[in-house]
Amino acid sequence: MDAQYRLKTFLTLPIITITMENEILKLFERCAEEVQTDLKTLRSRYYGDTMGMGADGTPIKKIDERAEKTVIENIERETDFNILSEERGLIDRGGDGTVILDPIDGTSNAVLGIPFYCISLAYTEGTLRDTEVGYVRNIIDDTEYRAVSGEGSYMNGHRLDPKPNDEYNFSVYMGKEAHPESFEVASIPRRVRSLGSAALEISMVAAGILDLYFMKTYEQRRSLRITDLAASFLILKEAGGEIYDGDLDPLDMELDPKGRKDIAAVNHGSVLEVLK
Amino acid sequence: MDAQYRLKTFLTLPIITITMENEILKLFERCAEEVQTDLKTLRSRYYGDTMGMGADGTPIKKIDERAEKTVIENIERETDFNILSEERGLIDRGGDGTVILDPIDGTSNAVLGIPFYCISLAYTEGTLRDTEVGYVRNIIDDTEYRAVSGEGSYMNGHRLDPKPNDEYNFSVYMGKEAHPESFEVASIPRRVRSLGSAALEISMVAAGILDLYFMKTYEQRRSLRITDLAASFLILKEAGGEIYDGDLDPLDMELDPKGRKDIAAVNHGSVLEVLK
Repeated sequence: MDAQYRLKTFLTLPIITITMENEILKLFERCAEEVQTDLKTLRSRYYGDTMGMGADGTPIKKIDERAEKTVIENIERETDFNILSEERGLIDRGGDGTVILDPIDGTSNAVLGIPFYCISLAYTEGTLRDTEVGYVRNIIDDTEYRAVSGEGSYMNGHRLDPKPNDEYNFSVYMGKEAHPESFEVASIPRRVRSLGSAALEISMVAAGILDLYFMKTYEQRRSLRITDLAASFLILKEAGGEIYDGDLDPLDMELDPKGRKDIAAVNHGSVLEVLK
Repeated sequence: MDAQYRLKTFLTLPIITITMENEILKLFERCAEEVQTDLKTLRSRYYGDTMGMGADGTPIKKIDERAEKTVIENIERETDFNILSEERGLIDRGGDGTVILDPIDGTSNAVLGIPFYCISLAYTEGTLRDTEVGYVRNIIDDTEYRAVSGEGSYMNGHRLDPKPNDEYNFSVYMGKEAHPESFEVASIPRRVRSLGSAALEISMVAAGILDLYFMKTYEQRRSLRITDLAASFLILKEAGGEIYDGDLDPLDMELDPKGRKDIAAVNHGSVLEVLK
């Protein structure tokens, strides 16, 4: 570690890059903490005031906008990065790099009261495949995933190196918009989950908790956007896994907030065989 | 409330019953808090020590036994109730009533690191349908469901009165042991979840978060036992919902730790129509 550090000090450029990436991670962490504190307060107030009025959730439906505002304010104050966000699209500030933001991944869960959603933040200077920093944080239980390109990925400080489970655990997107193939995939393994937050579920593939995250919908109407994916994409790649598109080709996406792709994310290449 | 209280004071027997049920709830609450504290410590130690060794989970696999021991000790110390538990079967102590215990519902989630599991505690003096007290607590986010027969059910102190959601939210058990019908049910609604803790998911039906919990397996091999069900059964009944068996007849079960039943739990009778 020391030798590596000295080497990097000697090669001036890499040390600057690493410093910047760590600074970005710290910025992401501050954004996440602020969003999390706000949401926890809002959540307890929501369940206090409106339970029994049905799960309509009107007061909490704007949590996405509220969390987005918090993050954008932080990024605009501290950097010159462009921002790509689900709600607001691309905010071009003339920066070299772009922060890809999903302030709450799993909004339906948050609105309904299913305790499983996260904040997802990534940084790239190119397309999805060029993502350099990824940060995902479970807002309920504080589990935190982070990755820097070329430096591995970590869950709560522990380096991730997933192995396929003996009995597979798959997460499969289902419902009336799911592609029929989804139901075949959901009949393969011993355990199936469908948890409602792609960023968190793909991060769990990176942690070896799940072996596959599968989302395929009719005409890709409900499929994933780069804002949902960018952070967990890097977290999984750096853990040694891979993300494929609906044709099982390695996934890439442009910085287009509207583009959608079907996804198969695996912790190990061998898992892909069951889909072929 | 005061008038009701005076009436009950006048009719001596009911006031005794109500006091006993509240005492049982308090006992359940103490058990849950003790289990929860222990599990949270264990969980942070587990993720500290063994992440990266794969999701084998050997050190945490005994959490069921450990939590069961905690609860049984409390119940034996404070009452003469019989105890029916998943691991130990029926402990007959000659009491009139029986505590039905699932110390951790969603053990696979706990072992794998999926943050969704609960403790489930119930009290009956007859079969499942005679359950008088039900208590379910999410160990991760502290959400607490409780019910006393004839007194309604509550989530974090708020009385539950669920309405079907405009776009249905179903929870469906899937995987290689799921009955083929499961995949048809999972293609009906806008949103499908499969969260891995029946007691918590059925409680969420009671809260109107989910409209249906559906579990049907080949030869009922993975289907639910009375230990999984008793507490959330009462919580849902008292909220106005109903639980049916695999033939869509109202469910009942004897105090047999080995018996298993397929389940369809709904927050409103209208939801059942989509299954017919």
